[in-house]
Amino acid sequence: MSLIEDLNWRHAVKAYDPTKKVSEKDLHTILESTRLAPTSSGLQPFRIIVVENQELKEQMVAGALNPEVMRDSSHVLVFAAWDSYSNEKIDKVYDYHTDVRDLPKGRFGSYTDKIKEMYGAQTPEQHFAHTARQTYIALGIALAQAAELKIDSTPAEGFSNEVVDEVLGLRELGLKSVSLLYLGYRDEANDWLSSMKKVRIPMDEFIIKK
Amino acid sequence: MSLIEDLNWRHAVKAYDPTKKVSEKDLHTILESTRLAPTSSGLQPFRIIVVENQELKEQMVAGALNPEVMRDSSHVLVFAAWDSYSNEKIDKVYDYHTDVRDLPKGRFGSYTDKIKEMYGAQTPEQHFAHTARQTYIALGIALAQAAELKIDSTPAEGFSNEVVDEVLGLRELGLKSVSLLYLGYRDEANDWLSSMKKVRIPMDEFIIKK
Repeated sequence: MSLIEDLNWRHAVKAYDPTKKVSEKDLHTILESTRLAPTSSGLQPFRIIVVENQELKEQMVAGALNPEVMRDSSHVLVFAAWDSYSNEKIDKVYDYHTDVRDLPKGRFGSYTDKIKEMYGAQTPEQHFAHTARQTYIALGIALAQAAELKIDSTPAEGFSNEVVDEVLGLRELGLKSVSLLYLGYRDEANDWLSSMKKVRIPMDEFIIKK
Repeated sequence: MSLIEDLNWRHAVKAYDPTKKVSEKDLHTILESTRLAPTSSGLQPFRIIVVENQELKEQMVAGALNPEVMRDSSHVLVFAAWDSYSNEKIDKVYDYHTDVRDLPKGRFGSYTDKIKEMYGAQTPEQHFAHTARQTYIALGIALAQAAELKIDSTPAEGFSNEVVDEVLGLRELGLKSVSLLYLGYRDEANDWLSSMKKVRIPMDEFIIKK
């Protein structure tokens, strides 16, 4: 199947079958797709927390818009972005890049100096606005990857960031939750959206050609 | 090829062959993939402006980090988000949804009332922070779709939003540019990144299992 067919197949599932689990192999493929997602300056300024444990899910549902969807999903992926950029974080990433590429340390120094200067002039709030955006690239790729594997997914912003950050201890890691992706297998009979036609606004309204 | 193979194949191309153009058919597939991207509440709060015209590109390069990449690309996709949410915009989308699904107008009224209340309590700045995030889901899917077609792409935030908004008349459309996606075919000899190994931080650092 092509990506277009996969995207037409998928929808944001509203009811999962709690007895069906995503395999470790498929989970790994979905996570690998997020790891390969491009990010600004290649900094990968976020982490993905995988929650399979039912007790943790129960703690995370407080304040969630669709608690039963989270509860019955096989896995919850938590996309959590760096709370800020720093020179140390930038150096760590680029030192790793030069290591892997067998290049002298500092090979990208003129570039990293530029981004350090740029982020140095910004507030942590501006940093997080930027790191949070990057997570959505990986979110889009993850749900496409899940669809390729015929695994259902539901992207979700309707949850309490405070609760999730607290339950997962994200603050101590310098991370803040941004979005969730529920993974699993649809319970077709109870998913009201399964029988509905996918709706997107028409191409000639969505695209503006210049 | 699988999505993972496509993602490993792609990289953010730094030099395009200006003589090679993306076909209308492939361009349409990439745009269709962005149209199918999920968005918060299904509102699709952004538009994509397709720029092929060389004169427009020349006007847009002012303030761009890599002007020659934009210039030599086949097409520039401009991801531009709604500057704000409004009850009218929400109703327009949901009236379209009920039309297409042959449901009575207002069928989703209790849900749209809730999101109208939520956005009604927010500032236009908060709206744009949210609409801008949504564009990145489609950006991620678009570059995956391009890779499936073996079309190169470069996501870019390094440009002047003011210049692009002005050149494309986005303000009048209630839109603000967020990111660009250059499309085309790599000029391998001049793309310094083509010969370099793709680097991503290791899985056990990127993923946190709970």
